[in-house]
Amino acid sequence: MDSALVLDAAGELWVREGRRVKQGDRVAVGHKEDGSEGIYVHASAFLGDPGEGGEFKFMTSEVSREKPIDYSLMARILIEERDRGGYPVWVAGPALVHSRARNDMTWFIQNGFVGALLAGNAVAVHDIEASIFNTTLGMTGSGEATTGGHGLHMRAINKVRAAGSIAKAVEQGIITDGIMYSCVKHDVPFVLTGSIRDDGPLPDVITDAVAAQDAMKQHTKRATMAILIATALHAIATGNMLPAFVTEPDGSLRELATICVDSSEFVVSKLKDRGTHQAFGVVTNAQDFMHILRLYVERELDARGLATNHGRLAVAGGVR
Amino acid sequence: MDSALVLDAAGELWVREGRRVKQGDRVAVGHKEDGSEGIYVHASAFLGDPGEGGEFKFMTSEVSREKPIDYSLMARILIEERDRGGYPVWVAGPALVHSRARNDMTWFIQNGFVGALLAGNAVAVHDIEASIFNTTLGMTGSGEATTGGHGLHMRAINKVRAAGSIAKAVEQGIITDGIMYSCVKHDVPFVLTGSIRDDGPLPDVITDAVAAQDAMKQHTKRATMAILIATALHAIATGNMLPAFVTEPDGSLRELATICVDSSEFVVSKLKDRGTHQAFGVVTNAQDFMHILRLYVERELDARGLATNHGRLAVAGGVR
Amino acid sequence: MDSALVLDAAGELWVREGRRVKQGDRVAVGHKEDGSEGIYVHASAFLGDPGEGGEFKFMTSEVSREKPIDYSLMARILIEERDRGGYPVWVAGPALVHSRARNDMTWFIQNGFVGALLAGNAVAVHDIEASIFNTTLGMTGSGEATTGGHGLHMRAINKVRAAGSIAKAVEQGIITDGIMYSCVKHDVPFVLTGSIRDDGPLPDVITDAVAAQDAMKQHTKRATMAILIATALHAIATGNMLPAFVTEPDGSLRELATICVDSSEFVVSKLKDRGTHQAFGVVTNAQDFMHILRLYVERELDARGLATNHGRLAVAGGVR
Amino acid sequence: MDSALVLDAAGELWVREGRRVKQGDRVAVGHKEDGSEGIYVHASAFLGDPGEGGEFKFMTSEVSREKPIDYSLMARILIEERDRGGYPVWVAGPALVHSRARNDMTWFIQNGFVGALLAGNAVAVHDIEASIFNTTLGMTGSGEATTGGHGLHMRAINKVRAAGSIAKAVEQGIITDGIMYSCVKHDVPFVLTGSIRDDGPLPDVITDAVAAQDAMKQHTKRATMAILIATALHAIATGNMLPAFVTEPDGSLRELATICVDSSEFVVSKLKDRGTHQAFGVVTNAQDFMHILRLYVERELDARGLATNHGRLAVAGGVR
Repeated sequence: MDSALVLDAAGELWVREGRRVKQGDRVAVGHKEDGSEGIYVHASAFLGDPGEGGEFKFMTSEVSREKPIDYSLMARILIEERDRGGYPVWVAGPALVHSRARNDMTWFIQNGFVGALLAGNAVAVHDIEASIFNTTLGMTGSGEATTGGHGLHMRAINKVRAAGSIAKAVEQGIITDGIMYSCVKHDVPFVLTGSIRDDGPLPDVITDAVAAQDAMKQHTKRATMAILIATALHAIATGNMLPAFVTEPDGSLRELATICVDSSEFVVSKLKDRGTHQAFGVVTNAQDFMHILRLYVERELDARGLATNHGRLAVAGGVR
Repeated sequence: MDSALVLDAAGELWVREGRRVKQGDRVAVGHKEDGSEGIYVHASAFLGDPGEGGEFKFMTSEVSREKPIDYSLMARILIEERDRGGYPVWVAGPALVHSRARNDMTWFIQNGFVGALLAGNAVAVHDIEASIFNTTLGMTGSGEATTGGHGLHMRAINKVRAAGSIAKAVEQGIITDGIMYSCVKHDVPFVLTGSIRDDGPLPDVITDAVAAQDAMKQHTKRATMAILIATALHAIATGNMLPAFVTEPDGSLRELATICVDSSEFVVSKLKDRGTHQAFGVVTNAQDFMHILRLYVERELDARGLATNHGRLAVAGGVR
Repeated sequence: MDSALVLDAAGELWVREGRRVKQGDRVAVGHKEDGSEGIYVHASAFLGDPGEGGEFKFMTSEVSREKPIDYSLMARILIEERDRGGYPVWVAGPALVHSRARNDMTWFIQNGFVGALLAGNAVAVHDIEASIFNTTLGMTGSGEATTGGHGLHMRAINKVRAAGSIAKAVEQGIITDGIMYSCVKHDVPFVLTGSIRDDGPLPDVITDAVAAQDAMKQHTKRATMAILIATALHAIATGNMLPAFVTEPDGSLRELATICVDSSEFVVSKLKDRGTHQAFGVVTNAQDFMHILRLYVERELDARGLATNHGRLAVAGGVR
Repeated sequence: MDSALVLDAAGELWVREGRRVKQGDRVAVGHKEDGSEGIYVHASAFLGDPGEGGEFKFMTSEVSREKPIDYSLMARILIEERDRGGYPVWVAGPALVHSRARNDMTWFIQNGFVGALLAGNAVAVHDIEASIFNTTLGMTGSGEATTGGHGLHMRAINKVRAAGSIAKAVEQGIITDGIMYSCVKHDVPFVLTGSIRDDGPLPDVITDAVAAQDAMKQHTKRATMAILIATALHAIATGNMLPAFVTEPDGSLRELATICVDSSEFVVSKLKDRGTHQAFGVVTNAQDFMHILRLYVERELDARGLATNHGRLAVAGGVR
């Protein structure tokens, strides 16, 4: 998004950010979208008949907390993505780490529903704080502040810095459960990007925004689905990088299913305003979203007779 | 709340709204709260040591979508209320009617967790629309608009008007499931109050605000717990009527547990600003709240070896 | 809105609420909008070419706090309404009463920009509290709570009840400035409708919702413009009653300009979801909206060389 | 904030981020705040008697859109800061750039009310887009989308990249008015920090989050006041860096006045939750805030007989 269309010497077309365009490159230029200057924009060319209903209708529905949330449909999409070897990219804000939501995110990673995890320093910090000290942001799982709890995330950061990286802290038995632990154990790649609000940061965090965008793009370009939860910054950044369509093995195109969860309609509207038209919004609390989505996925798997890995690393010899 | 303290001829103290105070009544009068004019206010006299932790700490915690929600605690409180024959008053806005939330509310009624239901015309209208036409606000259970759906709530109102009342429409087999149906079948009293926004209204609706307040008070004065879901108007009206404390059989006092669910922090803050200090807030989508709360209540009942009425009216001879 | 189309004996068409339709009335009936059952819906028939820009484009723009607010346009519309003898209906929530906003609303009434005021009990109560005690909701004009201030609105209600009505309290010199005072002095009609949240209520309040709707309709059917400020309940109720078009003296139709001000996008979206398509939303604080709108109206009047009544009742012989 | 207290060889105490603490440094260590482990926390030691009212009371008041906003007080604080040579740090999100707000921000810079400006890439991009193309985010000043407007910010970025920097683009006459122009012309330092959401970015943007924090701290440590407008990320980042107190020339301490403006209560609550206790919140639209604040400052200056630079760079020989 917001990039130039470049024709290379071999006759192939590339989409490149402005800073990657070099002098001499052949770039498509035009101020109009009607073809009069050589560029013709047709945003819905690949979508087929808009009246055909079903999934497409749901996707384009307006965002409102007053509408029912179709968890069944989302559960089916997630399972289908897993079945066909898709690459669902999860993008999460720190609300995901608290209490039950952390367990649920861990469950999705362990059961193969996460292609890659994109997040900020805080998600990893509080997840690791929970593994080491049993608090997040200094709060217990039921939301009570603990004495001295406000400093525990700094102590967690220090332990990981001493180990050298999150993976090493997992190896050394410092981090023993949770989201980052499961990513490491299940070889799910993650990108942690820095921001000016970060404490620490953790050694794995990419503090340069441009380098971080490049790291994120390694995953967004492979994405076959996106789940954006409780983060305006990361959701809109990812939305800017996501392709609008996924190419199927037979060459046909389908819209890239994009679920955006936030506690108000605002983030989803903002996402759509900035061109991620295919996003559909779920207006709810991130913790509750995760819990019900997992419940529906479990029910659907039960109905299909598929076993799940119930939050335990079951197999002898480990999971790696 | 916002009433006068009246000493009657028999020497008993009553709390009366201004419009009920008669000429000649002896009314406590004072501008100060420090006892210098005969009135001494001590809001926390009955609360014991604030440092003792546990339930009390949770109750007074600040409202924020960033805090974990303690569904286990709420489930335990609900079950304890049922076990001791309490009178939990549920107050609901129309968001409760959509899709899964309607089933969940029905389940709570059927399983004895609802002492009384206070709501507006719209809750009953869309619940009945769902029973007759299978839509709410013209949307299907998965949130899709249906052709001509915008008129179905009017047709539902007309059917109930023709029957004469909600109870008669249940008797005549017009309404066959849902929230209002279960209230009628399980003898759970309900108060439907009118507003200037109402279509219809249904014949059971009390359109006069003062009469409606009186009808609500018949239930709030018996309340031993309150659950306020997705409604600013009804939640704050009820908050104004709720006593702050419940008298136990042994004469001791405990705070009246008050749960307020809304999609933003605002309603709960407003409730507290207007004097319902004991309210604790859950910032989430009403549908998701209902689903997870039911799940936790079911789990807790399972753990206690108690059977539930799984959404079916099971017994031969009916439930009444 | 949500009414029946009735053909009377004289061959005239009337729009009637369901409860006003009598046995034997001839009512237009149909489930389709395409004419196949005798009803053909064409919502934009009177709007002309949608591509012509200007006012229409602004009206239909999406609601977002990220968009500039065009106060100049709103100021011009207000002045034009006044110039052609229009009937702008203002609908306000209690946020309008605090501090500067109260002065600004008073100014609009005094300067002829208000055809009618529709509000709830609280708006009048706190406006009168401000006139008598110099507080609103017990707060000073700079937002500080005052000792004993939480009871002042009850004392204000009592004074008006003793006088018999707001108009009598103005006559008797109890209420000496503000919104209600100016309505009385300038013969601007007002409708105060009751709700279950009300203290009091004031003697002028219509507590029956159906009677209140009828009273509101006396003004909405004359409306040539609507300004809905900081109230979900009253805004949506009024939206349901507003015609979508105004008939010009020459018989042509123009959209009824409808401005909806709220601190989030939600109320405006809700208004549109319920059929008030022509509403355009301003996402801001009601106090700030009033202050800037007045400023722009004053500037525009200055530019046109028109004097204003600067918050004083200037003319000898009084204003009535 | 979230840093270590280090005692250096010369016996001086320093506050250092974890990553700056070196092996061998003497660091204050303790888990308790009661002095039992050598650390004693007294957050309000310097505040004097909390009961003395006035400014202090306003500062600690709860955040709510229902409270009056005291623009007079804020205007007086701003003028006093300017009069005593203070260093007010302004932190802004992109909402500040649209339409009137851009003019108002420019006015504050030109009239000496801005010590430093901290913002992200987007603020500068859209401000420069407005100078070159007369749109922001592709919208006109009245909020209408323009054809091809979605690409104009990219063209603006390209022009600055070609010039080399914002200052050079001002020198070369590419940027001729607005916020960044005025910062350059009036020698007001600015820090633009990058994020993963950025297009471009502009050449002046510090893309590394840790380097950006360091650049921001050069200003926050000099700050005597802070105004945080319509940005969660930058407001909380700055809040983390701001000292809670300002040392007066006579060695006494006063709270660092911190104004936080946002369209909901959430950001301010979050800021307070993370330790910026002294922040007071204004819940409104950023554009309207800027316009009314400027109006009140102008009125106050008029009352004091002080001239202002009315948005024009008036003096012969330029302003530098």
